[in-house]
Amino acid sequence: MQFELTREFLEKLRIHIDKKEEAAAFDMVNDLHPADIAEIYDELEIEETKFLHDLLDDEKAADVFIELEDDDRERFLDALPSEEIAKQLIDNMDSDDAADIIGDLSEEKQEEVISYIQDLEQAGDIVDLLNYDEDTAGGLMAKELITVNENWTMPTCLKEMRRQAAEVDEVYYVYVVDDNNVLKGTLSLKRMLLASTNASIKSILNKDIISVKTDTKSEEVANIMEKYDLVALPVVDAIGRLVGRITIDDVVDVMREEAERDYQLASGITEDVEHSDSAWLLTRARIPWLFIGLFGGIIGALVIGNYENDLGLYPQMAFFIPLIAAMGGNVGVQSSSIIVQALATNSLGFESLGRKLSKELFVASLNGVILSTVIFAYNFFFSDSFALTITVSTALFSVIIFASLFGTFVPMLLERFKIDPALATGPFITTVNDIMGLFLYLMIGRLFFTIFT
Amino acid sequence: MQFELTREFLEKLRIHIDKKEEAAAFDMVNDLHPADIAEIYDELEIEETKFLHDLLDDEKAADVFIELEDDDRERFLDALPSEEIAKQLIDNMDSDDAADIIGDLSEEKQEEVISYIQDLEQAGDIVDLLNYDEDTAGGLMAKELITVNENWTMPTCLKEMRRQAAEVDEVYYVYVVDDNNVLKGTLSLKRMLLASTNASIKSILNKDIISVKTDTKSEEVANIMEKYDLVALPVVDAIGRLVGRITIDDVVDVMREEAERDYQLASGITEDVEHSDSAWLLTRARIPWLFIGLFGGIIGALVIGNYENDLGLYPQMAFFIPLIAAMGGNVGVQSSSIIVQALATNSLGFESLGRKLSKELFVASLNGVILSTVIFAYNFFFSDSFALTITVSTALFSVIIFASLFGTFVPMLLERFKIDPALATGPFITTVNDIMGLFLYLMIGRLFFTIFT
Repeated sequence: MQFELTREFLEKLRIHIDKKEEAAAFDMVNDLHPADIAEIYDELEIEETKFLHDLLDDEKAADVFIELEDDDRERFLDALPSEEIAKQLIDNMDSDDAADIIGDLSEEKQEEVISYIQDLEQAGDIVDLLNYDEDTAGGLMAKELITVNENWTMPTCLKEMRRQAAEVDEVYYVYVVDDNNVLKGTLSLKRMLLASTNASIKSILNKDIISVKTDTKSEEVANIMEKYDLVALPVVDAIGRLVGRITIDDVVDVMREEAERDYQLASGITEDVEHSDSAWLLTRARIPWLFIGLFGGIIGALVIGNYENDLGLYPQMAFFIPLIAAMGGNVGVQSSSIIVQALATNSLGFESLGRKLSKELFVASLNGVILSTVIFAYNFFFSDSFALTITVSTALFSVIIFASLFGTFVPMLLERFKIDPALATGPFITTVNDIMGLFLYLMIGRLFFTIFT
Repeated sequence: MQFELTREFLEKLRIHIDKKEEAAAFDMVNDLHPADIAEIYDELEIEETKFLHDLLDDEKAADVFIELEDDDRERFLDALPSEEIAKQLIDNMDSDDAADIIGDLSEEKQEEVISYIQDLEQAGDIVDLLNYDEDTAGGLMAKELITVNENWTMPTCLKEMRRQAAEVDEVYYVYVVDDNNVLKGTLSLKRMLLASTNASIKSILNKDIISVKTDTKSEEVANIMEKYDLVALPVVDAIGRLVGRITIDDVVDVMREEAERDYQLASGITEDVEHSDSAWLLTRARIPWLFIGLFGGIIGALVIGNYENDLGLYPQMAFFIPLIAAMGGNVGVQSSSIIVQALATNSLGFESLGRKLSKELFVASLNGVILSTVIFAYNFFFSDSFALTITVSTALFSVIIFASLFGTFVPMLLERFKIDPALATGPFITTVNDIMGLFLYLMIGRLFFTIFT
C-alpha cells in the first residue's frame, strides 16, 4: 500500500532510463503516489528526472512537482522552458501551489510564464496571490473553493456545488456567502447529509465560523488551526469578503518548518539549512554563532588573564574552569528552552514576571544545592586543598543561580521587544553564562584562597 | 471572531463566580469555543472551574474537557465522582477522546467509570481502544466513522450515511467496505457531488487509498499523513478489516509533542515538562543531564590535573581553556542537529556514511581555517607568547574537526541501534567534545611550549 523507496528499485529504474526504455520506466512509477515519485526525483540526476517527467501525464507531473523539495524544484524549474512551465504545470495546479512556484522565479521569467497560462481565471488568481506576503494567510491560501449563496435552497445549491467541485481538488467545507460575497458561514458534509432535501441554506448553515484576514501571520494561522482543530480555514479581506481558504496540509508544513527553525536556532544555526545543502551554505549558516563563541572565548581569556597571578600561585584553580563554564551553559540553555516553548505556545498565562523568576530561582536552588554538594564531597575526598573545595562548590552554586535567572529573563525580554525569543537559546546564552561563570569562579577563588592559605 | 483571553475578562468572571451569579457567568462563557473555555479553566482554581463546568450543558462541558491540558484534566478528574465522569463527559465524547481520558485513570476508577456508561456500544468501543498502545495508530484512532457497503447504490448509501452521520462529529470521508468489513476504498464529498444520483458505489469509489495497521507507530502515522497530505486515515486490522480512523487534528498534536520533545532533549531536558509544572518535576527533568555535565567537568579536571606542571610553568595556557571547550561543544551541537533533523525527516537518501563524513569534514575544515586564522591574528598581535599563539590556533582547528565528525557520527550510530538520535545532541555531545578539546589543547600546548620556549 505504501511505497518504500529501495536502492534496488532505484537501480532498476535508472537502467531503464539510461536505455531510454520509456514503457518500462513509465510502468515502474505511474501507479505511485505523487509524493513517492517526488522522492524518486530527489535521488536522480536532472536529466534522468526530465526523462521521467516527460513520460507522466500533465496532471500527474504537476502533482509530483508540488511535492518536490524546494532546492530540487528550483533546479528543475531552471531546466524547463517558460511555456512548458505554464502549460504543463501551472495550468494543472491549485492557485496557491502555482503562486508559490511562480513566486520563486526571477521577475522576468515570472512575466513570461504568466503570459503563457491559458486559463485566464487561473492567471488572474495567481497574480492576485503574488501580492501577498509569503508569511501571511494571503500567501498560504488558495483561491479554489466552493461557495453558495445563503438565499439558495438545497437543490440549487447542490447543482451549483456540482459545477464548482470539478475545479477543486479536495472539498472539506462549502462556504456560504451573501450577495456581496461576505462570508456568512459553512456547510459541512455532515450538515448536508442530515438536511432535508429542500431546506434553505440559511436554515442549515453553521454561523459559528472562525476565519482569518489576509494579513494574519502564518504562525498565527497555524496556532488557530491547531487550537480549534480545523482542517480548512476561510480567509476574508478587510471588509469580510471571502477571498480564499487555507487547508491543514499547508499549515502542517508551516508548523514543521517553524519547529525545525527553533531547533536549529537552539543549536546555533542561523539559516534554514539541510544536510543536503552545499558546504558553502552550511558554513555560512554555522559560522555566525561560532564567531560569537570565539568572541566569548576571547573575553573569557581576558577575564582569566586578570587572575594570572592567582593561577601562577594556585594552578589547581585551572582544573575546574571547564566544569564551571560548562555548567553555566547547560543550566542557562535548560531554563531558556522551557521559557521559549512556553512563549511559543502562549501557555505562560497571566503569571507575573516576578513569580516566574522566583519559581525558576527555587528550581535553580534545588539543582544548585544537589550539584554543589556532590562536587563538594568529591573534592573533599580527592583534593588536598580545602580552599579549592569550597571555591568550586560556592562558584557552582552561584553560577547555577545566575544562569537560571539569566536564561529565564533574556527570552522574556526579547519577546517584549518583539524579537524571536528562540534566538536567545543556544550559543548566546551559553556564551554569556560561560563568561559570567568564569568571573564568579575566579573572584570567589581569590577570596577563599586568600582566607584559607 | 476569535476570542482573546484578557486579565479584565478573567477578573470579571471571577467576581461572578465568587458571588455565585450563575446566569452572568454562564453568559460570559457559553458562546465561546470549547478551546477558549479550556483556556479560561487553565487560569482558574479547581473550585471555580467546577462551578463553571456545572453551568454548561453536558455536550459543551465534554468538549471543553477534551481541550484541557493534561495536568488540568487530571486534577479535575480527581475532583469528579465516577458517575458524573461517565454520564456527563464520556457519553458525550468520541471514543478516542473517551479512551484517552479513561486510560489516565487508576484501574479501579476505570472499571467504575466504565460500569456507569449508559451507551453500551460506546462502552464496548472504549474497552476495545484501551487495549492498544498509546503510541500506535490503534491508540490514536476513533471508532466513529461512516461506512457503506460497496454493493449499495447511491440512494441506499445516502440513507445509511444520514443515519450514521448523526453519531459522528466531523465527516471528511465515507469509507467503503465489502461484506466482511474489509476496507475497499473511500468516497469523498467531491466524488459524491459529482456522481449521478443512482450510480453504484463500486463505480465511484476511490480505490487508491492509504491505510495503516493498528500497530503502526504514531510517529509513522504522522509522517504518512504529512507526506500524503491526508486529513483522515483509515486504520485496519491484520486482515484488512476497517476498525477506525485517525483525524489530522490528533496527528498535529503528535507532531507538536514530538517537536517539543526533540527541542527539550537538545536543551538537556529528559522529561516532557512545561513551565507550569511543579518545581520538583522540573528539577527531576533537568538534573540528569546536569550530572553528566558535572561528571564531564570532573573528567576535565583530571585531564587538566595531568598537566598541572605545564600550567605552573605557563599559566597563560589556562586563558584559552574555556574557548577551546566551548567551541568543541558548539560545533558538535551544530553538526549533530543537522544530522538529527535529516534522520527525523528521512531526507538523508542513499548517500553512504563515508560521503556524509567527508562532506562534514569539508565544512568543518572551512569553519576551522576561518576561525583558527582569526584567533591566530588576535594572539599574534595581543599575546607575547608565540607558543601560545600557535597552540591555540592548532588546537582550535583540531577540536573543530573532531567535534564535527563526532557530532555527525554519534547520531547515525544511535539510529543504527534504534536509539532516538535526538538523545545525542545537547549535553552528551557537548560534554564529550569539551573533554576531548581540553585533551587536544593541553597535549598540543605541551608540544609547542617545549619547542618554542
